[in-house]
Amino acid sequence: MPSGRRVMTVRVAVAGASGYAGGEVVRLLLGHPGVELGALTAFSQAGQAVGAVHPHLGPVAGRVFEPMSAQALAGHDVVFLALPHGESAALAEGLGPDVVVIDMGADFRLRDAGVWERFYGSPWAGCWPYGLPELPGAREALAGARRIAVPGCYPTAVTLALFPAVGAGLVDREVVVTAVSGTSGAGRALKPHLLGAEVMGSVSPYAVGGTHRHTPEIAQNLTAVTDGEPVSVSFTPLLAPMPRGILATCSARLTPGTDARQVRAVYEKTYADEPFVSLLPEGVWPSTGAVLGSNQVQVQVAVDPAADRLVVVSAIDNLTKGTAGGALQSMNLALGLPETTGLPRTGLAP
Amino acid sequence: MPSGRRVMTVRVAVAGASGYAGGEVVRLLLGHPGVELGALTAFSQAGQAVGAVHPHLGPVAGRVFEPMSAQALAGHDVVFLALPHGESAALAEGLGPDVVVIDMGADFRLRDAGVWERFYGSPWAGCWPYGLPELPGAREALAGARRIAVPGCYPTAVTLALFPAVGAGLVDREVVVTAVSGTSGAGRALKPHLLGAEVMGSVSPYAVGGTHRHTPEIAQNLTAVTDGEPVSVSFTPLLAPMPRGILATCSARLTPGTDARQVRAVYEKTYADEPFVSLLPEGVWPSTGAVLGSNQVQVQVAVDPAADRLVVVSAIDNLTKGTAGGALQSMNLALGLPETTGLPRTGLAP
Amino acid sequence: MPSGRRVMTVRVAVAGASGYAGGEVVRLLLGHPGVELGALTAFSQAGQAVGAVHPHLGPVAGRVFEPMSAQALAGHDVVFLALPHGESAALAEGLGPDVVVIDMGADFRLRDAGVWERFYGSPWAGCWPYGLPELPGAREALAGARRIAVPGCYPTAVTLALFPAVGAGLVDREVVVTAVSGTSGAGRALKPHLLGAEVMGSVSPYAVGGTHRHTPEIAQNLTAVTDGEPVSVSFTPLLAPMPRGILATCSARLTPGTDARQVRAVYEKTYADEPFVSLLPEGVWPSTGAVLGSNQVQVQVAVDPAADRLVVVSAIDNLTKGTAGGALQSMNLALGLPETTGLPRTGLAP
Amino acid sequence: MPSGRRVMTVRVAVAGASGYAGGEVVRLLLGHPGVELGALTAFSQAGQAVGAVHPHLGPVAGRVFEPMSAQALAGHDVVFLALPHGESAALAEGLGPDVVVIDMGADFRLRDAGVWERFYGSPWAGCWPYGLPELPGAREALAGARRIAVPGCYPTAVTLALFPAVGAGLVDREVVVTAVSGTSGAGRALKPHLLGAEVMGSVSPYAVGGTHRHTPEIAQNLTAVTDGEPVSVSFTPLLAPMPRGILATCSARLTPGTDARQVRAVYEKTYADEPFVSLLPEGVWPSTGAVLGSNQVQVQVAVDPAADRLVVVSAIDNLTKGTAGGALQSMNLALGLPETTGLPRTGLAP
Repeated sequence: MPSGRRVMTVRVAVAGASGYAGGEVVRLLLGHPGVELGALTAFSQAGQAVGAVHPHLGPVAGRVFEPMSAQALAGHDVVFLALPHGESAALAEGLGPDVVVIDMGADFRLRDAGVWERFYGSPWAGCWPYGLPELPGAREALAGARRIAVPGCYPTAVTLALFPAVGAGLVDREVVVTAVSGTSGAGRALKPHLLGAEVMGSVSPYAVGGTHRHTPEIAQNLTAVTDGEPVSVSFTPLLAPMPRGILATCSARLTPGTDARQVRAVYEKTYADEPFVSLLPEGVWPSTGAVLGSNQVQVQVAVDPAADRLVVVSAIDNLTKGTAGGALQSMNLALGLPETTGLPRTGLAP
Repeated sequence: MPSGRRVMTVRVAVAGASGYAGGEVVRLLLGHPGVELGALTAFSQAGQAVGAVHPHLGPVAGRVFEPMSAQALAGHDVVFLALPHGESAALAEGLGPDVVVIDMGADFRLRDAGVWERFYGSPWAGCWPYGLPELPGAREALAGARRIAVPGCYPTAVTLALFPAVGAGLVDREVVVTAVSGTSGAGRALKPHLLGAEVMGSVSPYAVGGTHRHTPEIAQNLTAVTDGEPVSVSFTPLLAPMPRGILATCSARLTPGTDARQVRAVYEKTYADEPFVSLLPEGVWPSTGAVLGSNQVQVQVAVDPAADRLVVVSAIDNLTKGTAGGALQSMNLALGLPETTGLPRTGLAP
Repeated sequence: MPSGRRVMTVRVAVAGASGYAGGEVVRLLLGHPGVELGALTAFSQAGQAVGAVHPHLGPVAGRVFEPMSAQALAGHDVVFLALPHGESAALAEGLGPDVVVIDMGADFRLRDAGVWERFYGSPWAGCWPYGLPELPGAREALAGARRIAVPGCYPTAVTLALFPAVGAGLVDREVVVTAVSGTSGAGRALKPHLLGAEVMGSVSPYAVGGTHRHTPEIAQNLTAVTDGEPVSVSFTPLLAPMPRGILATCSARLTPGTDARQVRAVYEKTYADEPFVSLLPEGVWPSTGAVLGSNQVQVQVAVDPAADRLVVVSAIDNLTKGTAGGALQSMNLALGLPETTGLPRTGLAP
Repeated sequence: MPSGRRVMTVRVAVAGASGYAGGEVVRLLLGHPGVELGALTAFSQAGQAVGAVHPHLGPVAGRVFEPMSAQALAGHDVVFLALPHGESAALAEGLGPDVVVIDMGADFRLRDAGVWERFYGSPWAGCWPYGLPELPGAREALAGARRIAVPGCYPTAVTLALFPAVGAGLVDREVVVTAVSGTSGAGRALKPHLLGAEVMGSVSPYAVGGTHRHTPEIAQNLTAVTDGEPVSVSFTPLLAPMPRGILATCSARLTPGTDARQVRAVYEKTYADEPFVSLLPEGVWPSTGAVLGSNQVQVQVAVDPAADRLVVVSAIDNLTKGTAGGALQSMNLALGLPETTGLPRTGLAP
């Protein structure tokens, strides 16, 4: 990993390191050659050993979570925020303009204050550069950025599946999405329906009917590639019996005259040079198992002539590309490092 | 179970009893008070002890699978066929017109010979009364029937989710369905992608783009309630890491002026007296875990005002209501028994 | 199920019906022909609909949990207690001597006050007839009993695996047991290590070194068949990624001169007429999947000549035979009903 | 990863790269800074794209498996053999004495020809240096070695759990082991009992009674640290519903006078400087989830005073430290590279 040598070492803190997203950031930072791991802060877990909360993080098992505070986070070049929404703005203010602040929460994702308030029921905190490098113009916006909003896990999977077709006008602007997620997507919340005994052997939906908070984020991303023509999103998330992974099944009606060849050509062109997006060979379909623990996105397209619809399926690891990996990818861009530095390209299978 | 007394005892054979569908029929028949279990036949497993193939069927563990033959199946009042498609017609011919023959395979489900040949690539064998009692007019057709085609597992889940809305004109005729299935739906086929190590922790699609053979069956069922107006079906099946269960997420654009109240009223009316379909209380969503091993169908509806779509989610056990339980339900109707005789109404959870 | 007719109908209440054990008792009572389901009480879930807590119990989904109280439990012939330990004694006192009180908790299992206090750290409440009918003399003690202590799930699996060999002196009195349990064995406790994301894909031990509270119960059962010669038990429980099931691997050194033939003969004799214990054919091994949801116990034995040890493996469903099914089996005996009434003999597989 | 620079680049081939062990070697080699990936050979999968068989290995998805042959393997510095037992000897002969040949199969593990023939039923091929660096004297034997036998997955977990206690005489020489494995341990074999629908939700034993081929390998390892005093091993392997991981529960009777303090001191001393073995803090227990995808071994010890036994539990990833990771660790030693080069120290969780 020669890039490991060309880069200066940056000092990185993680605020909210005791949750699943925080733990995944630490896992990836431990493999990043240009990073020195600084403070790891937590709320209720403060004072506990990292190894007691994240037994898989052997190399830092003996370290202790510090209480959440401005002082604890001071003196770092980069600070990742893995906090419940509503917590990030105040913390970010205290960190100074030169610190790279990367928010893995929702606070700075939405551009429309009214939409934010309708879905989150709290005052809008603002909007930061959006950390999805594969979107048109995103890399330019992220280069040198000091504030970055990491996309939600579902919006990452769905946007990368649909924006090429929507942007190229291959389909109409009423997309229908069903996305299956592993249960880590719900975080380490102590709720009965997340207990192993309830989860194993069962698939169930939630937030049906457009109420999931990721719905407006998906719409915002797709509308951005249609010169502002609004895109309607029917989004249904499902919980499946696996720890990690999102498989998004996305469809929309084909624009008259569009055929499979054109569709494939658009996706091939869009993703030809993307390091983390794999348009699979024809006939091969994505699976969450194939991207487990990696920053890869698997994408495949199909035209259904009878139903006159385009179907696009994408697979990601919700905690890696969907959260912490995407965050590191944006950090690399903000710091001028090679975009792929420290990010796994292979999944863990079987 | 007073019905257990009013019925005569019928002698029942199962052809293809060594597979998952066959094993589930035997499991249910062992709990049916009006049934005497006759021949259990198999192809490659003939000669093996039932307990070696189905270790969960203790009460018949010591019995042996007989070779598949007309003689083995002779002398029964009811014969269930759990065979690869293409095998049923010949066997049925040898069984005589008074025997109740219930085909759990696909051979007699489709009414259109051309559609059959396009999807199955073999000559059409014909069409039998369709064993989905909840459909309009189905009970009349099944009463006294001597040949019954059991619906596919996906069509059972999807049809019961959508026919009330489609039939009442609450939505347009372009339905979009993503259905997640447990891996027993693929049968006991020895394929690498069905190995536990590949399946656990992974969700993946298959037969994307309208090529799954259940697609025309779903379209046939929905078209039947629209006075023949064709219904287009965009159907994507997914495999999830669980042994059993189907969760179907179904949506279609709302007819102008339709609201949530009307939708709920239609579903309440449709399923008010159905013994095996539960329209859940508002805000409660189906899960496959809740119907594990039972003949129940859980259904819930939601209106998405922003996307202007109706979303209906249904959950079944693919082997019970989706195959063997639905088959027994139709057998009860054909024999004039109470429809619910011997069919579990509670799931196994957690 | 002719037994269903010969019996009077008894009115049954379940105290603590909102937990996993309570839910399983209700599931089984719904299939018992001689039972009328009375009060279902709960602590924190009181006032909630049964269907909101146990979505699989469709037939009683609309009922509501009553607050835990003596009045709520009054007027029943049988009361099942599914409570945290320490709660049962007080409740039982209020129920009158003619009521059949069946405690699925630990309070009345241990005969030795000192052992109780050492493992539970609270005053000993006493000792009731022990609800493991397969033990020598147990059926006599349970016939007509009005107070019954249901065995723990691990002790059920381990005792039925080992007591024939220990009782017949085929092995020494130092048994070593490793038992794998599904996560429902930990109850519906909201603990991080029981979350689906932590449980799936991981096996881990707990209470290692003889500290599990079921250890003295196992020792008590085995010592009872050795004319009081103490039996030492090295017991290690493991948690596995499945909702239900216990697989117990039990071994002890063979008594000099003991061979495989003698061992098999003893187990065949012991379990020849037991309705719920299956000594599997030689070479076939138990699996928890085969007894899922049933009251069956699968047992198999092997002699290891090189290590000079007997290995016995047993499989049960921890919630059925291991808790609620065993409780109903004892209820049947206490009421003079056929022992198997209302108890599933087939598992749910695959 | 400074070691990445000091090393020359070696050219590495993998024979049998299409199986689970082969795929895991490739996954790890892709992350090794001193390796250039050469030929990937296969038997039945020859001619297929790597991505079709190992969809998680994106960086080499486009490469094609070559047919198994001496020519294909010629011209490499290191050749990993991931073959069915019996295949390695012939292949190794053709590779020349200077090539580092690392056999992940069983052929060269056992020192005793008679034992080999009894357990494998084929002629003994010989014995190579044993690739478990943590054993006394092993690193010296592996330095510069050109033939290496990689230990079996169970022997790796069990030996590292027990050899310190057995070697220090803390326990007697009759060890009892129950080890739970994920289903990838059985390889990509198309057997019904390995199908996802059979595996999920079920735990079952196999090769009970000392017949598993890893039993004599465990005995050989433990006997090696007792000055030749024979150690008897009672070994029972279980299959659990997870893709990867081994959790070994190992126990033996304590030598009179041994206490917990002494035990802990021996294990602390033994593993103080081992890069891949973590003796966990007191009270914390290993889990397979914590070492998923990593080369780490988690170990914990407990003394059971009542049963007078030592219980040691270890957790590994059967495909990483248990097979391919252990193989790379030995390759590093054979080539004089830093032992930890290219080997993951963190697990993937949740």
